[in-house]
Amino acid sequence: MFRVYGSWRHSLHCLRRFSTQTSHEAGRYRPRRAVMYVPGMDKRKMEKIPSVGVDTVVFDIEDGVAVDQKGTARYMIPETLAQLSIPAATEVTVRVNGLDSNLTREDLQVILEKSPDGLPEALMVPKVQSAEDVAEVDCMVGEFRPSAKHQPLPLFAIIESPMGLLNLRDICYHGIYKCEAVRLQVIVFGSDDYLAMIGGVRSEDASELVFVRQSIVTHAKAYQLQAIDLVHIDFKDLTSLKRQSQEGAWMGFTGKQVIHPTQVGVVQEAFTPTQDQITWATGLIEEFDKHQKLGKGAFTYQGRMIDKPLLLQAKNIVNLHNAISGRTNS
Amino acid sequence: MFRVYGSWRHSLHCLRRFSTQTSHEAGRYRPRRAVMYVPGMDKRKMEKIPSVGVDTVVFDIEDGVAVDQKGTARYMIPETLAQLSIPAATEVTVRVNGLDSNLTREDLQVILEKSPDGLPEALMVPKVQSAEDVAEVDCMVGEFRPSAKHQPLPLFAIIESPMGLLNLRDICYHGIYKCEAVRLQVIVFGSDDYLAMIGGVRSEDASELVFVRQSIVTHAKAYQLQAIDLVHIDFKDLTSLKRQSQEGAWMGFTGKQVIHPTQVGVVQEAFTPTQDQITWATGLIEEFDKHQKLGKGAFTYQGRMIDKPLLLQAKNIVNLHNAISGRTNS
Amino acid sequence: MFRVYGSWRHSLHCLRRFSTQTSHEAGRYRPRRAVMYVPGMDKRKMEKIPSVGVDTVVFDIEDGVAVDQKGTARYMIPETLAQLSIPAATEVTVRVNGLDSNLTREDLQVILEKSPDGLPEALMVPKVQSAEDVAEVDCMVGEFRPSAKHQPLPLFAIIESPMGLLNLRDICYHGIYKCEAVRLQVIVFGSDDYLAMIGGVRSEDASELVFVRQSIVTHAKAYQLQAIDLVHIDFKDLTSLKRQSQEGAWMGFTGKQVIHPTQVGVVQEAFTPTQDQITWATGLIEEFDKHQKLGKGAFTYQGRMIDKPLLLQAKNIVNLHNAISGRTNS
Repeated sequence: MFRVYGSWRHSLHCLRRFSTQTSHEAGRYRPRRAVMYVPGMDKRKMEKIPSVGVDTVVFDIEDGVAVDQKGTARYMIPETLAQLSIPAATEVTVRVNGLDSNLTREDLQVILEKSPDGLPEALMVPKVQSAEDVAEVDCMVGEFRPSAKHQPLPLFAIIESPMGLLNLRDICYHGIYKCEAVRLQVIVFGSDDYLAMIGGVRSEDASELVFVRQSIVTHAKAYQLQAIDLVHIDFKDLTSLKRQSQEGAWMGFTGKQVIHPTQVGVVQEAFTPTQDQITWATGLIEEFDKHQKLGKGAFTYQGRMIDKPLLLQAKNIVNLHNAISGRTNS
Repeated sequence: MFRVYGSWRHSLHCLRRFSTQTSHEAGRYRPRRAVMYVPGMDKRKMEKIPSVGVDTVVFDIEDGVAVDQKGTARYMIPETLAQLSIPAATEVTVRVNGLDSNLTREDLQVILEKSPDGLPEALMVPKVQSAEDVAEVDCMVGEFRPSAKHQPLPLFAIIESPMGLLNLRDICYHGIYKCEAVRLQVIVFGSDDYLAMIGGVRSEDASELVFVRQSIVTHAKAYQLQAIDLVHIDFKDLTSLKRQSQEGAWMGFTGKQVIHPTQVGVVQEAFTPTQDQITWATGLIEEFDKHQKLGKGAFTYQGRMIDKPLLLQAKNIVNLHNAISGRTNS
Repeated sequence: MFRVYGSWRHSLHCLRRFSTQTSHEAGRYRPRRAVMYVPGMDKRKMEKIPSVGVDTVVFDIEDGVAVDQKGTARYMIPETLAQLSIPAATEVTVRVNGLDSNLTREDLQVILEKSPDGLPEALMVPKVQSAEDVAEVDCMVGEFRPSAKHQPLPLFAIIESPMGLLNLRDICYHGIYKCEAVRLQVIVFGSDDYLAMIGGVRSEDASELVFVRQSIVTHAKAYQLQAIDLVHIDFKDLTSLKRQSQEGAWMGFTGKQVIHPTQVGVVQEAFTPTQDQITWATGLIEEFDKHQKLGKGAFTYQGRMIDKPLLLQAKNIVNLHNAISGRTNS
């Protein structure tokens, strides 16, 4: 059914149209270096968010909330959002329950109808296994937030099953080109459920996850999406957190999930562009502008032919740099 | 042709029907921690099997048997099976020759017609490269073992070529949903032929095989199949065998191929669930039963929303634990 | 559109027909252990090529040439080819600019129309992202080198984007079975553009590239193509070059890109078959010939059932050995 992504040429065509409308556009890249979960019924923790300085906060109704607390969390999140002054630099997201729970629709209804205008800024859906899952979410969101009145809501999809990984190309394609009420922007790797489902065990260096982590980056980047790496479980070991964060950044992840405020600084620093990257990107964009003015198409920069995707990558780096340069990292 | 797996929702639907009929069902998980090959014309080695205590034995007519011995092995296996008292804890499998050899049909005819009732319990087919290969095997088995009279014969498919890996999703789908005389239950990684075919060389840490090993686990687990890791060649080095076995278990493999009885104990111990896994799984199932009685659907357990696949995984662990708890490991 | 590779059985069928016509055939395996780039407007460097002893030289009009030099390079390459006596052992290739540059067609026209007869022996196209890209190249080449008058020109496709990797199966299939003026023979991994496009960073051990490198080998070898590994950037560090070359050879790559003559010897040695491989391959082919004469199909060799793909692999090793045994390595 949904194996409809067709040819790359078509994808590129869509991508070009797409890139004039969304956060991929220059100047609107949204930094999501650290993506922090806060349980949606823990008022005390939620109230601390404005001072954390995290790029993305996720008010959680899923794993962080016991089943008999789901109703409480659903209503407490909109209420809290109405009271808090969360700085614009922190993106506000809500994680609803997965489709298998039969709680998703009610989660969405309460969150979308009761939250203050413009909030949440994005939606996170766990356990996405197929393009049909994305279609179902799109349908539900459209019910409570008609696309005629709203821009599509940015969507984070968590991949945490082997079937989700096998279907990731369809998920990306559908989430970008076939949705109306939501638009896929971020792929998140849910490592613990993934490992439980394949019956694996987490080792010190996560070597058993090389395939899935790098496969997720490849898919996300092929579709110009952000990719968010696994949670580092031992939140007290910042040395090991730093090493794992850098490893993820080098693999091409754009950010990492965190579960505690002490992790935010280390993680955000690891996902901040290096001076080398900024110099490369700034120079590339300057050259591009210069050649555009001269009416020349192709050009080489630092010994490489420059094309659209590299230009986009350079813009992402510069935009990320600009977006975060006024921020502290924790 | 066979690229027919369609949508995940459909797969899930099939999976649900499927899970009421097969060994995936609670209480019938078949442990296959060590899968040991014995040449089918080596009577002395075959007669030792009852005392080895291995989870799965494979009476081999393929690589373990020279071409001029194929006929001997074909007839000796059924004869030997009729004489031996192999304990119920040891699953009896036969490996036939691959389809390219033109020996497969005759192998199947002799083995299926001459073996004692109920034996072999499963069939292993090497060099599976496509869904068509699986269809061809299904057809041949159906000739000698009509599906009207028999339950489908559990099938082990060995993936040992890059084309087999590229086609693995189709192979899984076809072997589970489209066969009548056989039903795919196990994916086996044949590392030596794989390496010869890609022109690679085996290194000490098998780092050149990370992609293929983890890709096989992902596919197998997406379709709830077991996955059997590579043979450790140097059968005298048990320390290195132990390390590689644990590595495979952590990646999500459910067992490992062995070629010598001395390897069985080390391997089976490495693929035995840890106390932590058993505690996690037992607790999860208890919680699930409790919530079922109260008529509640979703629940969290140890901070995680629990869904069907995680429940299935927990049941597999408990069933494996129960199935092997009375066994010695060598 | 181009997702037409169909079934493996069909592929194999095509492969068999195919193998009677191309360099896959016994005796015609083309060694490409080192693939060296030389800027197409650098006459001095080009004139040194005859003495380098490299398996494949790539006269470059892409990254090695500034935009205002493209025209110069286009004409200088055919001119230089007419003057130089490059030994038959060195394959002569030209790298044109990628399709997004709008320079490809003119590159091809000048190179194909102005070069001496029989040169270049192959064509390298960068930034291949889809089967459509291959089709477009095939179409352009056909314009200037009609297939009615010529054998198909061997094609090297550089994969250097995540979308190219996702589409690699279609690219292989199309490049082998659907082209008229070119025929795909080699997949090259362009690591630097790939890393820039996924936003990754090159580490010492290239661990962030495990997935893409091994995925490329799997695809190439499934379609009996050669696979060329990444450039080792620091061309002065020959120790580290040697380690990385061997790693690539063990993964199944058949060669490696180089950017400096000093790298050629080290690389070509690493991709030379070991004595063990030659003994294995020679023995296998002898056994095969013996069994053919006796009219026997299947046979085992060193404890393994031998089929067509293993035979082909053995022939490649022997042919590579024969092809290079008279050569010095630098």
